Amino acid sequence: MKSRKPRRAVRIVLVEPEYEINIGHVARVMANFGFDELYMVNPKVEIGFNARMFAKHASHILQKARVVGRLEDALRGCDLVVGTTGIVGRSRNVIRNPVTPAKFANDISKLKGKLALLFGREGTGLNKNEVKRCDFLVTIPASEDYPVLNLSHALAIVLYELASNKNQVMITAASEEEREMLIRCFNSIVDNFSMQLRSPDKIKQSFKRVVGRSLVSDVEAAAILCVLQRIRKKLKIKRL
Amino acid sequence: MKSRKPRRAVRIVLVEPEYEINIGHVARVMANFGFDELYMVNPKVEIGFNARMFAKHASHILQKARVVGRLEDALRGCDLVVGTTGIVGRSRNVIRNPVTPAKFANDISKLKGKLALLFGREGTGLNKNEVKRCDFLVTIPASEDYPVLNLSHALAIVLYELASNKNQVMITAASEEEREMLIRCFNSIVDNFSMQLRSPDKIKQSFKRVVGRSLVSDVEAAAILCVLQRIRKKLKIKRL
Repeated sequence: MKSRKPRRAVRIVLVEPEYEINIGHVARVMANFGFDELYMVNPKVEIGFNARMFAKHASHILQKARVVGRLEDALRGCDLVVGTTGIVGRSRNVIRNPVTPAKFANDISKLKGKLALLFGREGTGLNKNEVKRCDFLVTIPASEDYPVLNLSHALAIVLYELASNKNQVMITAASEEEREMLIRCFNSIVDNFSMQLRSPDKIKQSFKRVVGRSLVSDVEAAAILCVLQRIRKKLKIKRL
Repeated sequence: MKSRKPRRAVRIVLVEPEYEINIGHVARVMANFGFDELYMVNPKVEIGFNARMFAKHASHILQKARVVGRLEDALRGCDLVVGTTGIVGRSRNVIRNPVTPAKFANDISKLKGKLALLFGREGTGLNKNEVKRCDFLVTIPASEDYPVLNLSHALAIVLYELASNKNQVMITAASEEEREMLIRCFNSIVDNFSMQLRSPDKIKQSFKRVVGRSLVSDVEAAAILCVLQRIRKKLKIKRL
């Protein structure tokens, strides 16, 4: 179950990050989803041993990360600036009309160009001017009681949405013929007992739905078919 | 942008967690998405100051978390057991046929009943027997180069998907006993043919997976059981 490397050019920009653990986790999450371009604006901490430790096998991302002094330096070369925020529009400021990560990923798929994805300080997020600099905002729908996610967890969810083809089926599904065979085999057994069963059609429907919903794999279908064929043989069922 | 509190009863089960930071982050992520029931099986670390610090405003979840000695104790009262795994079967091992978090959230939305969501050790994940205990598996599609997410980031993505699903409950899931009966019945038939079958265990696993992933309803389970019982009678299978 592996996703392609995202072809989209995305730069992750951390604004004044405060903790090495978060910076390390950010690098790991980026590697997990195939992103590798990290900028940090004026980090409040030395990026040292702890950051590398929590980056685990993604310390190469920290190594080539760029540290800059001003936000504008981190945005150079990007066509679209997207901010993330946990604080949702109390003001009437139109700029704070965030979209969900899912909608963002969907919308962005239609766009060409390079994207900067901004994450604010752990404590206070992005300030007013930084938010203004964004073309739009993304917010993760969360519990009313505690809506503020940790930086790296928010990033994980946004990159997951960006990277994943959500309807991807990871099982090698049985072909229609294989499923059909499985169902016909089962049905022939039901027919064999039809005089003794109250609602054979319901039984057939149930099996068909279970097979359908489970997205039975080719291997599984073959395995189950194996024993159904044995049953048919034993019951001397000829027709299919 | 706030999600409702999920009505679904979900228990998060950490199997032998090793690091306080992860345990703390897990609690915070749970609170972020409105979940609050945490079980830990045989944690390898004292749940102390660091865990509470990283839980931030979610330390109440740690306070009421249950620590148990055996996995079975953590699963009591749950109708469906869902494992998470980063290691995806290239092998023909039928047991590993995971679905994406999005598909999982969608499927599960049709289900009533209590869910246990299992996360394995940071280093080695869930072992073979623990995976076997699961009704099905969820895996996050990730980069080929570094597919293994940190525990709390994996949890964040799965809970994000679970919490954001808006679908209605439609199926009354078969209870654990009903599914168990269905599977035991099927297995007794496989055993009956075991001399003639190449890999009876694989067949049993296949059936279990298909039943698990399909989220078989009570009505469907009863219907399929009906014909399995007929087969057993015909084959003169006594033991179950």
